[in-house]
Amino acid sequence: MGLVVQKYGGSSVADAEGIKRVAKRIVDAKKNGHQVVVVVSAMGDTTDELIDLAGQVSPIPAGREFDMLLTAGERISMALLAMAIKNLGHAAQSFTGSQAGVITDSVHNKARIIDVTPGRIRTSIDEGNIAIVAGFQGVSQEGKNITTLGRGGSDTTAVALAAALDAEVCEIYTDVDGVFTADPRVVKKARKIDWISFEDMLELASSGSKVLLHRCVEYARRYNIPIHVRSSFSGLQGTWVSNEPQGDRKVEQAIISGVAHDTSEAKITVVGVPDKPGEAAAIFRAIADAQVNIDMVVQNVSAASTGLTDISFTLPKTEGPKAIEALEKTRAGVGFDSLRYDDQIAKISLVGAGMKTNPGVTATFFEALSDAGVNIELISTSEIRISVVTRADDVNEAVRAVHTAFGLDSDSDEAVVYGGTGR
Amino acid sequence: MGLVVQKYGGSSVADAEGIKRVAKRIVDAKKNGHQVVVVVSAMGDTTDELIDLAGQVSPIPAGREFDMLLTAGERISMALLAMAIKNLGHAAQSFTGSQAGVITDSVHNKARIIDVTPGRIRTSIDEGNIAIVAGFQGVSQEGKNITTLGRGGSDTTAVALAAALDAEVCEIYTDVDGVFTADPRVVKKARKIDWISFEDMLELASSGSKVLLHRCVEYARRYNIPIHVRSSFSGLQGTWVSNEPQGDRKVEQAIISGVAHDTSEAKITVVGVPDKPGEAAAIFRAIADAQVNIDMVVQNVSAASTGLTDISFTLPKTEGPKAIEALEKTRAGVGFDSLRYDDQIAKISLVGAGMKTNPGVTATFFEALSDAGVNIELISTSEIRISVVTRADDVNEAVRAVHTAFGLDSDSDEAVVYGGTGR
Repeated sequence: MGLVVQKYGGSSVADAEGIKRVAKRIVDAKKNGHQVVVVVSAMGDTTDELIDLAGQVSPIPAGREFDMLLTAGERISMALLAMAIKNLGHAAQSFTGSQAGVITDSVHNKARIIDVTPGRIRTSIDEGNIAIVAGFQGVSQEGKNITTLGRGGSDTTAVALAAALDAEVCEIYTDVDGVFTADPRVVKKARKIDWISFEDMLELASSGSKVLLHRCVEYARRYNIPIHVRSSFSGLQGTWVSNEPQGDRKVEQAIISGVAHDTSEAKITVVGVPDKPGEAAAIFRAIADAQVNIDMVVQNVSAASTGLTDISFTLPKTEGPKAIEALEKTRAGVGFDSLRYDDQIAKISLVGAGMKTNPGVTATFFEALSDAGVNIELISTSEIRISVVTRADDVNEAVRAVHTAFGLDSDSDEAVVYGGTGR
Repeated sequence: MGLVVQKYGGSSVADAEGIKRVAKRIVDAKKNGHQVVVVVSAMGDTTDELIDLAGQVSPIPAGREFDMLLTAGERISMALLAMAIKNLGHAAQSFTGSQAGVITDSVHNKARIIDVTPGRIRTSIDEGNIAIVAGFQGVSQEGKNITTLGRGGSDTTAVALAAALDAEVCEIYTDVDGVFTADPRVVKKARKIDWISFEDMLELASSGSKVLLHRCVEYARRYNIPIHVRSSFSGLQGTWVSNEPQGDRKVEQAIISGVAHDTSEAKITVVGVPDKPGEAAAIFRAIADAQVNIDMVVQNVSAASTGLTDISFTLPKTEGPKAIEALEKTRAGVGFDSLRYDDQIAKISLVGAGMKTNPGVTATFFEALSDAGVNIELISTSEIRISVVTRADDVNEAVRAVHTAFGLDSDSDEAVVYGGTGR
């Protein structure tokens, strides 16, 4: 029985009842002989309420002070959770990100963890305490200012602490039962995945699956920390994310892990770009200088008659205006004809390491979309993922068709599986 | 133009509008050429709401975690205040008690400041920032745990920072115009005091005046930091508390500074105590061992016929049960007859350094009470204070009678004054 890091999200500790329920679960882990470190998010809507307050005093809340404000949320939840645990007769101490040794860079509102020095946590648990740590926050190496880690930051806190403390497992408690083969709100027959590799999980996370964020999975893979995603509302096993299936658990891996979709992106097409060296580079340099992250990129074959080509790429809708502005400034230099902006698109991705050794996957994928009458606008592939861009209106039907075609539906006997022990 | 420390209480920053109003006032001080350090309390009812939340998860919230919880309140108000100041075009940085170098002992929920090392604050203001500091909180020297200073702790934070930074003045902004000659809710004709000595203010504070707490005034006297108590809702001069009147301000000090009253105490009488050496000591040792603070003590003259005496003392009502329990345990050893507990009492105190040189004060005080038909149950005096215990029902009438008798009423011409330059 080793050390376990548990992370509870805001929905699990939304009120006093939630906090007491979570406290019981934590104490159970302690009673089972584990050393327990808990990472907790702010209660329910606390963070949104604080953001709202900030908006009332200042239209553009500033980085350093905004972080100071937001970190009050975890301070409240962690102290209450420690009290609730004590009330069950077990010793508990709460620690801020700074006290827990979560050291970050100085980029306020989306800092990155650069080191974890959990000396106080180690001492606390060695003295028999359950240690409760504020998620989402740290302290900057330079300046010793309070920082926050951005969206999903508490998951990263949990994995980083698990790595620094050499934990057996990092348990991420949430309001769903685990990672599913597709979004259960879209695909009623989606199945919970018992085990998934870090690599497939990374692809799902960057393709629109919201259960775990890419940064958190990347951190876990780097330090080889198994993640167990599970519900704080049930005692069920959830989804294990690791290099290989845990212990004697018998898990079979499907060729395809799941179907992810993402409707948060837009597509920009730069029309009539002169097809000569340096033009594409100039366009993407402008985009990069504007700090816009782009996703899929496609350049059409140049039309011989005109010597002009079109370049399309996708990017978060929120960054659309910034990108358009940056591109307009390059129009004279690059000499393109026009810009098209389209935010009515969806990205559908099929993820699975099995596709590397199963040549028919791409064909099956496209056939399923075609049979469902869904038109494909862009295609991009990696070794273990195929993504297409379609009309936003088609997304639900497209996901369901693909899910069924690969035998992922929960009442299907067709799922193609092989005995998996990693790859 | 030197350094000013300003402290704003929870009622001054109760909502976004209040925070913006306070921000303007702070910026005005900065524009006037001052370096400005601001100490701020939690917004309005935040602390009470957090205490309520704690009660929902645990019937007996524990010290360390309770402090961690409560300090979230100032974190919110200070960050919002810094944002509001930035929005007015001025640089501001907020600091927790720990970051501001407020070092305390380890007594959670009512820690005492043992040192202030404001290096980060000094750097911040020297760089041109307005520094916003969380009141009420610090960090323990041993263990580096977050502590809170108890009721009125933000005032103490402000005075302690003012002392450590060698400020010109510590301005305490509140929702009243200053310190009054009596509680204006009881005495409509109470007058605002323009200047009062530390010594008189200490006596008022320990006699029931709630504008400033004893601990804060004691700290200011020790380091000779002038306090200016004033309203955050008006631009009026408030009450200066200092060793002597400030600068060229012409202030005349009345013989009597004010009349304070306190209905938060109870009276215990130990009846039939054998009048021999050691009996009183045994009683008060028992009280002290139970950590009960007592206020006035009176021992009756022993009745020659019985050799028995009665001992009465007053104490906070909240500590009554603890004291009774402690005394009952000594009954066999001491051999007293019975205990009487009375929580329907009031204490009325007359405070003023002038009484030292004006022999008629005591007589006038007792005559005023007698004329008002108020019976005196206990009397206790210091060099500059006379306190009596009366029935609780009589308190308002008694305070008004005494206030009038000493010419303190605002429309009175009778106030006996002398030109004061300290004492």
